[in-house]
Amino acid sequence: MQNKSESADSLYDVIIIGGGPAGLSAAIYAARKVLKTVFISKDIGGQVTWTYDVDNYLGFSHVDAADLIAKFEEHVTKYDVEKLVGVEVKAVEVAGKTKKVMTDEGNTYLGTTVIIATGKRHRLLDVPGEKEFLGMGVSYCSTCDAPLFAGLDVAVAGGGNSALEAVLDLVKVAQQVYMVSLTPLTGDPLLQDKVAHSPKVEILTENEILRIVGDSGVKAIEIRSLTTGERRTLDVQGVMIEIGLMPNSELFVESLETNQNREIVVDSRCRTDVAGVFACGDVTDVPFKQVVVAAGEGAKAALAAYDYIINLK
Amino acid sequence: MQNKSESADSLYDVIIIGGGPAGLSAAIYAARKVLKTVFISKDIGGQVTWTYDVDNYLGFSHVDAADLIAKFEEHVTKYDVEKLVGVEVKAVEVAGKTKKVMTDEGNTYLGTTVIIATGKRHRLLDVPGEKEFLGMGVSYCSTCDAPLFAGLDVAVAGGGNSALEAVLDLVKVAQQVYMVSLTPLTGDPLLQDKVAHSPKVEILTENEILRIVGDSGVKAIEIRSLTTGERRTLDVQGVMIEIGLMPNSELFVESLETNQNREIVVDSRCRTDVAGVFACGDVTDVPFKQVVVAAGEGAKAALAAYDYIINLK
Repeated sequence: MQNKSESADSLYDVIIIGGGPAGLSAAIYAARKVLKTVFISKDIGGQVTWTYDVDNYLGFSHVDAADLIAKFEEHVTKYDVEKLVGVEVKAVEVAGKTKKVMTDEGNTYLGTTVIIATGKRHRLLDVPGEKEFLGMGVSYCSTCDAPLFAGLDVAVAGGGNSALEAVLDLVKVAQQVYMVSLTPLTGDPLLQDKVAHSPKVEILTENEILRIVGDSGVKAIEIRSLTTGERRTLDVQGVMIEIGLMPNSELFVESLETNQNREIVVDSRCRTDVAGVFACGDVTDVPFKQVVVAAGEGAKAALAAYDYIINLK
Repeated sequence: MQNKSESADSLYDVIIIGGGPAGLSAAIYAARKVLKTVFISKDIGGQVTWTYDVDNYLGFSHVDAADLIAKFEEHVTKYDVEKLVGVEVKAVEVAGKTKKVMTDEGNTYLGTTVIIATGKRHRLLDVPGEKEFLGMGVSYCSTCDAPLFAGLDVAVAGGGNSALEAVLDLVKVAQQVYMVSLTPLTGDPLLQDKVAHSPKVEILTENEILRIVGDSGVKAIEIRSLTTGERRTLDVQGVMIEIGLMPNSELFVESLETNQNREIVVDSRCRTDVAGVFACGDVTDVPFKQVVVAAGEGAKAALAAYDYIINLK
């Protein structure tokens, strides 16, 4: 258990928020610089937990995603970093020399610097039934969940590469796949071609999903054509929502500069526009969302925080 | 053997120059994007070959440097990348839509993009004897070569952290260590303190090394005090030169923007100021010279090159 009075009284050099590759790499570098560090995250691994295998992290030509996360976590455990896992940050005050981070446990952590490594999450459809049937037919991760839909009818929401890849994952196991996209398909022509040639797939572009219905699990979705207004009910036992990712930047959009995608703007040293506040990984405007990029950016953020602290003294 | 006419005729999507972590990570990402890629480097591993162990590359809590390089190389070998190892680039023409890379073998490679990952090298003293006795007492890597000086008298050139660390490596094995610095010592006070307390060390600040002399190996160095002008000969069997690193940017300083340290200036997408030319790793102005940072920047450079090529078509 966290001791409330102690946490409130002590000043950390660095507060790292987020437990994906960026946050974990930042923790290692902060610890190696002997900075007093607290690491706060809901979970360990971030988006790596959504995938099965990683083939493009230099040094691991092929690795199980869970194994890679275990290696990352073991690496951090070697160092003297206070880790709060399973803890959610509810508010952050970045103005002023001392930064304040408030958690869902009611604690406030004080830091000379903050490193934001909160990553991205799946964009929601925002329709009735979506939340109710999460894990009961509604999924945001075809790589994780496609096998659950063996022999069933499934809808995929989206028209980009992720949605096309989800369809191709699903046709291997499902009986029938509906691809429902608000727009014409936008993904790679090669993927579109593969999907178009699958006899199991019905493509419904310029259609919106109105609601997801069911009882103990998903039973159907209601859709409406944007061109004709026609409504239709599709009997499906699963809905795979693949309409993109959004940055976990809500706590910062008022206080830090963000771009049109609400990603936090950083310079080549991972500095935000507020002194003492750094950001790294997928929550930033660095456009390449890759494990090795996040790990590199995390190291940069911690070293930039160290430089900031050294120059204060 | 490289076929000259073939290499001159074919247009590569990407020419990667440099074989450290940045170049290797770039090669993986370029290959995964199915870009026609040639990788040209004098060696594999870059500065990682100068060290024994790596403790701060996320995922490897402790790894032998040679093993890490082997893993990196094995990873690249999985992909269809044309590798020219042992080949030196002599000239690069970056102006124009097609870039030209000329090698010491007399070949010219044509590329739509170039990724520069040429890293850094040790700064030279530039005194008589330095080149002649390289590997015969003159060394630029205390981590690699300190054990060779067991029981001997050694001089360390330099006054910063690398020089102080070299002295601390050497006092464990050598009989006597002279630390010769042009300036007062500039490294961390903690390291200075340790060096000052070692009875084996004589510190000679504001002294220049005039020459290194010997026969089949180093026998002595001649130094001169900058304050008194007094000359002195130190009988040493080794000279460890630790006066910093310089970027391998000579081929590019006329054609690309560089900073005051002659590092190539890049934006957060590893773009230089010339379209189609990207740079990553220690040759750039990104200030943190770390393996994991270089690997991340290499991935970014390749993905930025891919974006550039896609938008040309």
